[in-house]
Amino acid sequence: MTDPRNNALKFAHDNRPRFLDELKELVAIPSISADSAYRPDIQRASEWLAAKLKALGFENVKTLDTGGHPMVYADLMKAGPKAPTMLVYGHYDVQPADPMELWETKPFEAVKKGDYLVGRGTSDMKGQVIASLAAVESALKAGDVSVNIKWMIEGEEEIGSGSMEDFIKANAKLFACDFAVNPDAGMLAPDQPTLTYGLRGLAYFEIHLTGPNKDLHSGYFGGTVRNPGNELARLISGMHDKKNRVTLPGFYDSVRKLDAEERGEFERIPHTSDADYAKAAGVTGLWGEEGFTAFERATSRPTLEVNGILCGYTGEGPKTVLPAKAMAKISCRLVADQSPKQVEQQMVAYVKEHCHPAVKWEVKMISDGEPVISGRDSREMLAMAKAFDTVWGKKTIFRREGGTISAVAYIQNVLGAECVNTGFGLPDDLIHSPNEHLHIPTWEKGVDALIHFIYNLGEA
Amino acid sequence: MTDPRNNALKFAHDNRPRFLDELKELVAIPSISADSAYRPDIQRASEWLAAKLKALGFENVKTLDTGGHPMVYADLMKAGPKAPTMLVYGHYDVQPADPMELWETKPFEAVKKGDYLVGRGTSDMKGQVIASLAAVESALKAGDVSVNIKWMIEGEEEIGSGSMEDFIKANAKLFACDFAVNPDAGMLAPDQPTLTYGLRGLAYFEIHLTGPNKDLHSGYFGGTVRNPGNELARLISGMHDKKNRVTLPGFYDSVRKLDAEERGEFERIPHTSDADYAKAAGVTGLWGEEGFTAFERATSRPTLEVNGILCGYTGEGPKTVLPAKAMAKISCRLVADQSPKQVEQQMVAYVKEHCHPAVKWEVKMISDGEPVISGRDSREMLAMAKAFDTVWGKKTIFRREGGTISAVAYIQNVLGAECVNTGFGLPDDLIHSPNEHLHIPTWEKGVDALIHFIYNLGEA
Repeated sequence: MTDPRNNALKFAHDNRPRFLDELKELVAIPSISADSAYRPDIQRASEWLAAKLKALGFENVKTLDTGGHPMVYADLMKAGPKAPTMLVYGHYDVQPADPMELWETKPFEAVKKGDYLVGRGTSDMKGQVIASLAAVESALKAGDVSVNIKWMIEGEEEIGSGSMEDFIKANAKLFACDFAVNPDAGMLAPDQPTLTYGLRGLAYFEIHLTGPNKDLHSGYFGGTVRNPGNELARLISGMHDKKNRVTLPGFYDSVRKLDAEERGEFERIPHTSDADYAKAAGVTGLWGEEGFTAFERATSRPTLEVNGILCGYTGEGPKTVLPAKAMAKISCRLVADQSPKQVEQQMVAYVKEHCHPAVKWEVKMISDGEPVISGRDSREMLAMAKAFDTVWGKKTIFRREGGTISAVAYIQNVLGAECVNTGFGLPDDLIHSPNEHLHIPTWEKGVDALIHFIYNLGEA
Repeated sequence: MTDPRNNALKFAHDNRPRFLDELKELVAIPSISADSAYRPDIQRASEWLAAKLKALGFENVKTLDTGGHPMVYADLMKAGPKAPTMLVYGHYDVQPADPMELWETKPFEAVKKGDYLVGRGTSDMKGQVIASLAAVESALKAGDVSVNIKWMIEGEEEIGSGSMEDFIKANAKLFACDFAVNPDAGMLAPDQPTLTYGLRGLAYFEIHLTGPNKDLHSGYFGGTVRNPGNELARLISGMHDKKNRVTLPGFYDSVRKLDAEERGEFERIPHTSDADYAKAAGVTGLWGEEGFTAFERATSRPTLEVNGILCGYTGEGPKTVLPAKAMAKISCRLVADQSPKQVEQQMVAYVKEHCHPAVKWEVKMISDGEPVISGRDSREMLAMAKAFDTVWGKKTIFRREGGTISAVAYIQNVLGAECVNTGFGLPDDLIHSPNEHLHIPTWEKGVDALIHFIYNLGEA
C-alpha cells in the first residue's frame, strides 16, 4: 500500500492547473466588504465556497447569518472524538480596488503573468483559501486523515471582522476546536519558510470636524473663523512628537516591551533591513519612532497613520471656499497589551483636549482588532514548522507581523484555541494596492506544506 | 420737456418684472468657469450678453477670444470725444454648485422666495450685471446720456481672471476709458449704501506631496515611511504660529499698516462686530490673527486658509492604506502692498524648508490677483456716493472688502483707470455656497442708484 502522504502530494501536483482555475473563478467575484454596493458579490462568494466544500464531501455546510456578511461553515469529523479538531480560518472578502486607474489589468479578472497571478484577492487571501482547500482535498482523496476539520471562512476581515466576536461567542460549540490554522499571515520571502507568532491590533477612526454651519466665502470670512481643514491639520500634526512617538495620552502605557533576545532574533530575519523597507516602499529615506529598526516599528511597535483626508473643494481649478467640514480616517496599529477600546478613549481624550472650542468634533472608531501573541512550541506549531522545513529544505523563521487579523484574537480569546499563523503571500504582493498578485511557485509549495502538516499532525 | 432722469427711473420701475426674468434666463446657463465640462455654457452665457447688448443699441458688440473664456465687449460713444468714457466691468461666470445635496432648490433654476431670488450667480454676479444693463437701458430709453459707455464682461473671474491681464494689455486701446465701474463689490446691509475702496488680492495654491511610490498596506509599512497625509497635516499646521499669524517667510514684510484713522472709521461701520461675524458664520467663537477685529482681519489683513484637502481613501468604511499622495488647496488673501508672485516664492520657500526629505513636493499657484486700494474723492466716486445718498436717504460708507477682483487691479494697473467698486449683493447672500440668493428690494434700489449715478456724472 502506497504512502497516503505521497499520494496526496501527487494528486496536488497533478491538479495544479485546476486549483489555479478555481482561484481565478473566486477572484472574479468582486466581494468588497467595505462598500455596500458589493453586497450581492459577498453573498455569491460565500455560496461559491459552500458549494466547493460540499463537493469535497464536507458536512453541515452552511453560509451562516452573522448579522453582517455571511460566514461559511463546514465540518468533517470522521477522525473521531479522540482525534484533535482543527479549525481552518479564512476570509473571502477583499479590499476595494481603487485607485482603478493604476491597475495594469482588470482587478477582478485574474491574469497569469509569468510566475504571477495578478488580481484583487489573489494574495489576500483568496489564494490562501484555495491553497487550504487544495491541500485538504488532496489529503482526503488519498484516504482518511487523522484530524477532524472545521472551516470558518468569514466575509468581514477587510472591515475589521465586526460581527465575528459576538457570533463565535454565540456559536462557541459549533466552532469548538483544539487549535486553528490561519493562512492569512504570509511569508518573508519565496525562499524563507515563515511562521508568525505575533500580530498587531487595530483601532481605526474617523474624525469629523465642523466649523461654520455652511461653506463660506474665503474672501468674506477668511481670517475670522476657525477653518476645520486647518484645525484638522493641526490636530493630526500634534498626534506625533519630535521623536515621532504618538502623543495620545497613555498610548504607550500598556505596550509590552521588546526584550533583547527577541530583538536579536529579528536581526537574523533576512530581507528586513531598513534599506529593504525603503526599496519596497520606493522612498529615499525612512521615518518612524526613534530607537527602533524599521522591522521593529512595522511589527512590534504601535503606530498612528493617516489613511485618508477629505475637506472642502477638491475638484479641478480654484474654489475660494472656507469649508464647513473636514474628515480624516486615521488608524493605529496596536501591539500587546494595548486594546482598541483603550486607544479609542485616548483618541477621544486627545481631540477633546486639543480641538479649538468653536469647532465641533466627533471621533468614531469604525474598525478594531486586538493584538495577538502566541506560543512557539505547541504540537501544531511544530508540525507546521517541520512541514515547512521539509518542503523548503530550510529552517523556518518565527516572526511577528505588522498586520491585524481580528479573527485570530477572537479564536484565541473566545474559543481558547491558539492559531498557527501561516500563508504563502509575500511582502511585495501589493496587497491592498493596485496590481495585487500571487507568486504561483511559492503558492504551490504552500499546498505541499499544508499536506505535510496534515500528516505530521497524525505522527506527533 | 420732462426730466430724463425721472423718465429713466419710471422706465426702470415699470420694467422690474422683465429685468428679473432676464436674470432668471442668465442664471439658467450654468456658466461654471472652474470645470471644463461647462465650457459650452460659458460660451452660451457670453453670447446671451452679446445679444442683449446688441438689442440695447450698443455697437462693436463682440465675444472676444482671450485664449481662455471669451470676454464680452460693446461700446456706445455717442456722448462724443469730450465726454468721459466709462468702462462697466462684470463677469458672467459662476462658482461650482457643489455640494449639490445642500441646495433647497435647483441651483440653475432661479426661484423667487419672498423678497429673494435663489440660485447660483443671482448675487455673484449675474444679478449685478443685469442691474447695470437695466440702468443703462433705462437711461438710454429716456434719451442720450452724457457719458460714453464701454462694457467688459469676462468669464474667468471665479478662477482668478487668468487671461485678463495679457488680454487687456494687448487691447488697451479698445478698453481705454477715464474710469471704470465694478458692481461686484457688494453692500454692508440693505439699509446701508456702501462703496468699496480696497480689495484683497489672492494667491491660490495646490500643494502635492508624494511619499511611497504606491499606496501601501498600513499593517506592513505603518511606522516605517513618512505618510504624505501626516506630512501634509504637519506642513499646514506649521503655516500659522501661536498668535495665528502666517509663518511663510517674509509674509508680513510688505503689508501696509492700518492707520489709526482708518481703524476708527471701520468701527463706525454697522453689522461688522465680532458677534455679527460669529452669527453670520454660525459659530460659537471666532479665530484669527491676534490684535485685530474680525472686520479688520477679513478686509485689511492677509490670511491663509485651507480650501480643500484630498488624501488616500475617503469612501465608505475602513481601508487600511498608507497613501502614496496627498493634496491641499490653500489660498492666501493679500493686502496692499503684497503681491501674489512674492507670496508664491514664500510658499515655495516654506515647503522647501520644512517638508520631510523623503517626501516629494510640488507647489503650484493656480490663481492669483493683486490687492487694490483706490482714492475716495474722484468725480465718479463722489457721483456714485451722491446717487446712493439720494436713493437710500442715508450717508454712504466707504470701506475695504475682503474678496479679490483681479480685474480691478488690471484695470487700475494696465488701463490706468480707477474703479468705482459698488454692487448690491449682501453679506448673507451665501455666494459661493449652496442656496446663494439675491435680495430683490436692494437690487431694485441699486438699479435706481446706477441711473442717478449716470445723470450725476453729467452734472459734475
